[in-house]
Amino acid sequence: MSEDYRSMWESLGLDLTAHDALLGVLGTFYRDIYLTRKNRPEGMGYFDFVMSEVHGLRIKELLEEKVAGRKIIGSYCVFVPEEIVLAANATLVGLCSGADFAVEEVEKVLPRNTCALIKSSFGFKLGKVCPYLEAADMIVGENTCDGKKKAYESLDALVSNLYVMDIPQVKSEKGRELLKAEFWRFKEAAEALTGVTIDTERLKQGIRTVNAKRRALHRLTALRAADPAPISGLDALLASQVSFYDNPQRFTDAVNKVCDELEKRIAEKEGVFAPNTPRVVVSGCPMAVPSWKIPWIIETSGAVIVGEESCVGERGIRNLTDDAGQSVEALMEAIVDRYFKIDCAIFTPNPDRLAHIEEMVRAYKADGVIHYGLLFCQPYLMESIPVAKALEDKGIPILRIDSDYSMEDVGQLKTRIEAFVEMLR
Amino acid sequence: MSEDYRSMWESLGLDLTAHDALLGVLGTFYRDIYLTRKNRPEGMGYFDFVMSEVHGLRIKELLEEKVAGRKIIGSYCVFVPEEIVLAANATLVGLCSGADFAVEEVEKVLPRNTCALIKSSFGFKLGKVCPYLEAADMIVGENTCDGKKKAYESLDALVSNLYVMDIPQVKSEKGRELLKAEFWRFKEAAEALTGVTIDTERLKQGIRTVNAKRRALHRLTALRAADPAPISGLDALLASQVSFYDNPQRFTDAVNKVCDELEKRIAEKEGVFAPNTPRVVVSGCPMAVPSWKIPWIIETSGAVIVGEESCVGERGIRNLTDDAGQSVEALMEAIVDRYFKIDCAIFTPNPDRLAHIEEMVRAYKADGVIHYGLLFCQPYLMESIPVAKALEDKGIPILRIDSDYSMEDVGQLKTRIEAFVEMLR
Repeated sequence: MSEDYRSMWESLGLDLTAHDALLGVLGTFYRDIYLTRKNRPEGMGYFDFVMSEVHGLRIKELLEEKVAGRKIIGSYCVFVPEEIVLAANATLVGLCSGADFAVEEVEKVLPRNTCALIKSSFGFKLGKVCPYLEAADMIVGENTCDGKKKAYESLDALVSNLYVMDIPQVKSEKGRELLKAEFWRFKEAAEALTGVTIDTERLKQGIRTVNAKRRALHRLTALRAADPAPISGLDALLASQVSFYDNPQRFTDAVNKVCDELEKRIAEKEGVFAPNTPRVVVSGCPMAVPSWKIPWIIETSGAVIVGEESCVGERGIRNLTDDAGQSVEALMEAIVDRYFKIDCAIFTPNPDRLAHIEEMVRAYKADGVIHYGLLFCQPYLMESIPVAKALEDKGIPILRIDSDYSMEDVGQLKTRIEAFVEMLR
Repeated sequence: MSEDYRSMWESLGLDLTAHDALLGVLGTFYRDIYLTRKNRPEGMGYFDFVMSEVHGLRIKELLEEKVAGRKIIGSYCVFVPEEIVLAANATLVGLCSGADFAVEEVEKVLPRNTCALIKSSFGFKLGKVCPYLEAADMIVGENTCDGKKKAYESLDALVSNLYVMDIPQVKSEKGRELLKAEFWRFKEAAEALTGVTIDTERLKQGIRTVNAKRRALHRLTALRAADPAPISGLDALLASQVSFYDNPQRFTDAVNKVCDELEKRIAEKEGVFAPNTPRVVVSGCPMAVPSWKIPWIIETSGAVIVGEESCVGERGIRNLTDDAGQSVEALMEAIVDRYFKIDCAIFTPNPDRLAHIEEMVRAYKADGVIHYGLLFCQPYLMESIPVAKALEDKGIPILRIDSDYSMEDVGQLKTRIEAFVEMLR
């Protein structure tokens, strides 16, 4: 990234030395995992560029938006409704996570046995290396799992602009009422932040913009049903990851451009791997940039990933928000309806998730499922046991992997994954 | 326990061999930890008897109640309102936990990194050694922590009578509404189970019975403020533990009898330890029978425990339920009010708990706090860090201990606790 950004990062209070080190590692990692791979769609060049400028150009854009009076809202979860953020003339960005940083400092404020994702988000704050977090005018936490819920109490002492949204645990009438009340409260908070009153037109436009992004990603996911698979799981994951950072319209165009290319590949029976390569769906915990370890091991072990059942994947983007309503109230109901369908493991019971995994296996002609649980993520680790049993009962092979962001288990994971892939042939 | 009970245990479907082994270990453990200690109040003889008959006479009583048409409701949590259970002419019992059992079987249905309390409750079920569980007509689960919430999904496959209560995560208006709706739903479920319609008189009587139990325990806790302490922490904990199993009226009488004796001791400046023995409050996760490890280490390391800030302790019993209401609605409101005050770490934020720990330190003239966190119990482990910081900032020494039910860490814990106690002198 260009030298011009250093004063920008400094103005955000980043630790330049630590940040240089982070970007160095990230750059090497990205090159090794992505840029050396063959047969990637040309359209992925856009995503390579975005990644190369992830702490540069995109931050510059956000800061320019801020100068023009637009507010930036940061989020850690797919429960934060981007429709409302956009309607309030603000920009939503996913906040940094996905790599270990400043671990020693983190373990002074969080137990060592906290999931890597939460520890990572604290590491980026305590290590002063996340420009998104520092640029945000409001940081939205949400009471999903116990780990995040309690961690936000400690994050509140580290930042000045934390807003916490309560989330139900049961898909009951009362549960929906809570989500609705919390979305209305969030709407008011977004309006108070931006000074914009959300009207029907603004909300409708917000819904349309987010739906367009989802539609483009739905189009991409559907194309992965082809055999040979026209795109790697690593590249598809990258698109999902970038959806949390990028300008929504530009992102939508870029994904559709990749899809145009994939359609041609499919027509010509071209793929990124050979036909009949074992196909797997990855299900479980989210993989934020740069947690590419598991898909990288899978796709260098003889399999291709044809779907991600994850927040950074289909759990985050499936289901559109109905934009037909003719009032703010009607559109807000549609937003609540859409988000209340999210099949996160924090819900009890959570049968929709199992049904969705099975649906993905059928739709993408997968030969098996690899379940990825972050160590100490209780909701997904606990749910993975009955999910695995149910899939096995239906004859769908499944491998459960519990891991974190360290590289120490790569050898062991590779052995297990290779054996699983061998079984799928 | 008498041979007569074997056919009773068999009729409940217990694994007699495993159950014999459990009772053998429990008996030895109890003798070593309790019966060999000197200077115990005579009134504790009642509790020794109750413990010696914990799977015998008490189960016989419950089965006799069942024959007479009364229902037994089992619970894992202090959020289950005993007032409502009694008003429905049912009996509430705490379900077995507190020791590792059938670990290998448990780890087939729960992740290894699940807290010992949850694993234990599954172990008692899978090992077929909990007569309370097998005698229960209804088992009540509650969505408190992620671990329990998701574990109940798996428990549901192992028992035929599980009822799950949703619990709020925030002490907001919506949170109180949820608890209220859930308590009304539970009232209806209890009525459906027993065929009894809960009226004002029944509910008032239920409240009075439970309040009397709480008042007796409040009396006991207040007496522990004396120096020298008139009762050990181990004995006071035992009383709290037995409160979950015993007939409420008989229990209340037994506690009051101990209190009469303690008052005499205090008047004569007699104590269970020497005057000026370092005094500690234990705060954190619950200690179900037979998890006496931590208090046993503390009280054999030169300190006396003068209070338990725990579900099996003051968190479970503080605050009475107002019995003044003249309608079911008014009394139900009072019940909701009382339970909504419970300062469990599942709530975010949870400032009442810190305030209560400080209040206990002052009231019982404690020299320090030992925080007990069950390994992998995210809510308490996470909350323990800001709690410890806040106490340290106020000059209250605190030691954080994370442990489970194994005996492997006894040596290490003893070293740490002795050093902490030495510092309090």
